[in-house]
Amino acid sequence: MSTLSERILGGPAGTYVDREVDLAFAHDGTGVLTREALREMGVERLPHPERLHLIFDHIVPANTGTTATLQAELREYARASGVELSDAGTGICHQVMSEGIVRPGMVVVGADSHSCTLGAFGAFATGVGATDMAAIWASGATWFRVPETIAINLSGTLSGAAEPKDLALTYVAKLGMEGATYRALEFVGDGAATISMDGRLTLANMAVETGAKAGIFYADTTTIRYLSEYGIAASPQTLEECRYERTLDIDLADIVPLVAVPHRVDTVREVEEVAGTHLDQVFVGTCTNGRYEDLARFARIVRGKKVAVRTLVIPASRAVLARAIATGVLADIVEAGCMVMTPGCGPCLGAHAGVLGEGEVCLSTANRNFKNRMGVGGEIYLSSVATAAASAIAGEITVPEVV
Amino acid sequence: MSTLSERILGGPAGTYVDREVDLAFAHDGTGVLTREALREMGVERLPHPERLHLIFDHIVPANTGTTATLQAELREYARASGVELSDAGTGICHQVMSEGIVRPGMVVVGADSHSCTLGAFGAFATGVGATDMAAIWASGATWFRVPETIAINLSGTLSGAAEPKDLALTYVAKLGMEGATYRALEFVGDGAATISMDGRLTLANMAVETGAKAGIFYADTTTIRYLSEYGIAASPQTLEECRYERTLDIDLADIVPLVAVPHRVDTVREVEEVAGTHLDQVFVGTCTNGRYEDLARFARIVRGKKVAVRTLVIPASRAVLARAIATGVLADIVEAGCMVMTPGCGPCLGAHAGVLGEGEVCLSTANRNFKNRMGVGGEIYLSSVATAAASAIAGEITVPEVV
Repeated sequence: MSTLSERILGGPAGTYVDREVDLAFAHDGTGVLTREALREMGVERLPHPERLHLIFDHIVPANTGTTATLQAELREYARASGVELSDAGTGICHQVMSEGIVRPGMVVVGADSHSCTLGAFGAFATGVGATDMAAIWASGATWFRVPETIAINLSGTLSGAAEPKDLALTYVAKLGMEGATYRALEFVGDGAATISMDGRLTLANMAVETGAKAGIFYADTTTIRYLSEYGIAASPQTLEECRYERTLDIDLADIVPLVAVPHRVDTVREVEEVAGTHLDQVFVGTCTNGRYEDLARFARIVRGKKVAVRTLVIPASRAVLARAIATGVLADIVEAGCMVMTPGCGPCLGAHAGVLGEGEVCLSTANRNFKNRMGVGGEIYLSSVATAAASAIAGEITVPEVV
Repeated sequence: MSTLSERILGGPAGTYVDREVDLAFAHDGTGVLTREALREMGVERLPHPERLHLIFDHIVPANTGTTATLQAELREYARASGVELSDAGTGICHQVMSEGIVRPGMVVVGADSHSCTLGAFGAFATGVGATDMAAIWASGATWFRVPETIAINLSGTLSGAAEPKDLALTYVAKLGMEGATYRALEFVGDGAATISMDGRLTLANMAVETGAKAGIFYADTTTIRYLSEYGIAASPQTLEECRYERTLDIDLADIVPLVAVPHRVDTVREVEEVAGTHLDQVFVGTCTNGRYEDLARFARIVRGKKVAVRTLVIPASRAVLARAIATGVLADIVEAGCMVMTPGCGPCLGAHAGVLGEGEVCLSTANRNFKNRMGVGGEIYLSSVATAAASAIAGEITVPEVV
């Protein structure tokens, strides 16, 4: 009788376990540090390169000669070591891993804080530091303290203009930014079954914003159907009677469009309360909301209109971009006057391509609005895609209509 | 009995004339300096804001907070002064001006060295410095020394895999990088009529690489048809008997695919001579070769294949991008594994988004391969789109096939 984390990690909450890792990935930022740590450790051969992955997503394409040189060295390392490389333009690491690589029951570690995203598949997925990652690449395994679990028990269905991102902002606000430190979140209840895979990825993605190690959905028919499109056969995971540290009940019918205001993710307001806030930039994308469903929703709202503020749309992967082209979604987005950029993290972390100027205000579909994150002196509001779309058209924060 | 430059500027070669300027534009780089110069000059009101244009293309979207702040100030200046602004994502200044703004017979100045591009329409178009631009914005006029003209007399038609870019590299190599300093080039002869508007823009674009002030095509039925798509009525310009300083005869049937090798634009080789050169990056775009015809040609070659090297494709404008989406060209490019970026100059000038690392080699469809231009220690080869496409697939410089 165990939580999903207990079952996957193989021990009761609070115990320490050693576990082989099924998949371990780093990106261009942490990859450089992982490689450097491996060199310092004197590791020359990796025992399981087939479980390892490097994905260039943080600064793609390279913004400076230094970045380009570091990426070139990492590219060469991948070639020499047998680690699979997804080069610049493939997409954001979490999204690329969600496109036919992660499976239910896997133990997944990523050298990026939002690696919890992949809990959407019923995997135990968590972020580790670059040095830890080097040790994992060197040994193929790591230790975990099996986390206690907080259940997020969902009932009902989302309605009106609310979307999974609004639910994510809701649970982050309810738990607070340190409310689930070192816990796992399990999304359970009839309401969980109503949420698409893209929505589950959004919800699992933000688990770390409460301090949680993982945010997990049980694999069900939605998961199985999604994976079958990648030729992967999977079985449903059954919820057992188990001990949760706490249960947070949320009726999806109560969820309304929200905005996290500067500079904390857990400080949320109903959109109406901040409506009219002037915007200098709108950003739709990231590992939180750059998936096909997100782009399609955005396109439905901006179609035939023009954005009133500079608006960046960045598909989370090349596959998402290709699908958006094929279905006409990209055409609508471009015709509306948005900038579409190469798949990757974009300006989420303020490193390149869409950095805010002093005093500029951005409405973003990302997961973090910490002070100066997208540029020194910039302010970040976080919202759903529908709120971002309505606001891009108006040039100010705007309550989304039901479409 | 005058050259087209003499007719448009209104004086014989070698004389100085004062001329009202019909169109004067700057980009985000030079615009900042133009605005600063206007402030120092104490200019508060611009006499003809309707003739002025600011286009953000050099670093779009902003790569740093400083860039973003400068762009925000320029945006505010445009709003306050009445200068028309094409914000980030609209496209490269020369391309945006070619989409229904420039007309035959106009006097056009741009605060960018490749402003000669717009000579493709039978306009006198040339680049000026940012301080000169400020004086032009302040007064509405400027002086010119009417240039002597070198005729580039074209016969025959392009054949095989040769394209206008190969012709451009040919004439630049024949004249040399200082071979036409302060001259105008006129592209005349039966061969000129066979070249599309997109091809003419490529050819006029590279005039400055010979030191020329302008590179001019006479408006003909091709020009008139192109402009009519923008609702502009124009008349053909007739070649008069006139005195050319020199005539360079080129039979288009002799043109073969060429590459300009590092680090001079006028140092060209047949592609075959450098075939096999390892590439780290291929870049298709810029004011030289980022037009619809270029993207369509690239797509035809890469369709159904995968690029073997990181490949950046940047449409020259949002209109080009939208058309490439509508016709399936963009889908082919993305499916082939290229990165598509927001319309603008991209990494041509090494400022952001695709900068080369130390020792990296790039094949580019741009117009300049000066040392360190795309990144310190990087090497740049310049070629046509067809050569870039074949080379992207092979991962090394490759002779294009006839398609």
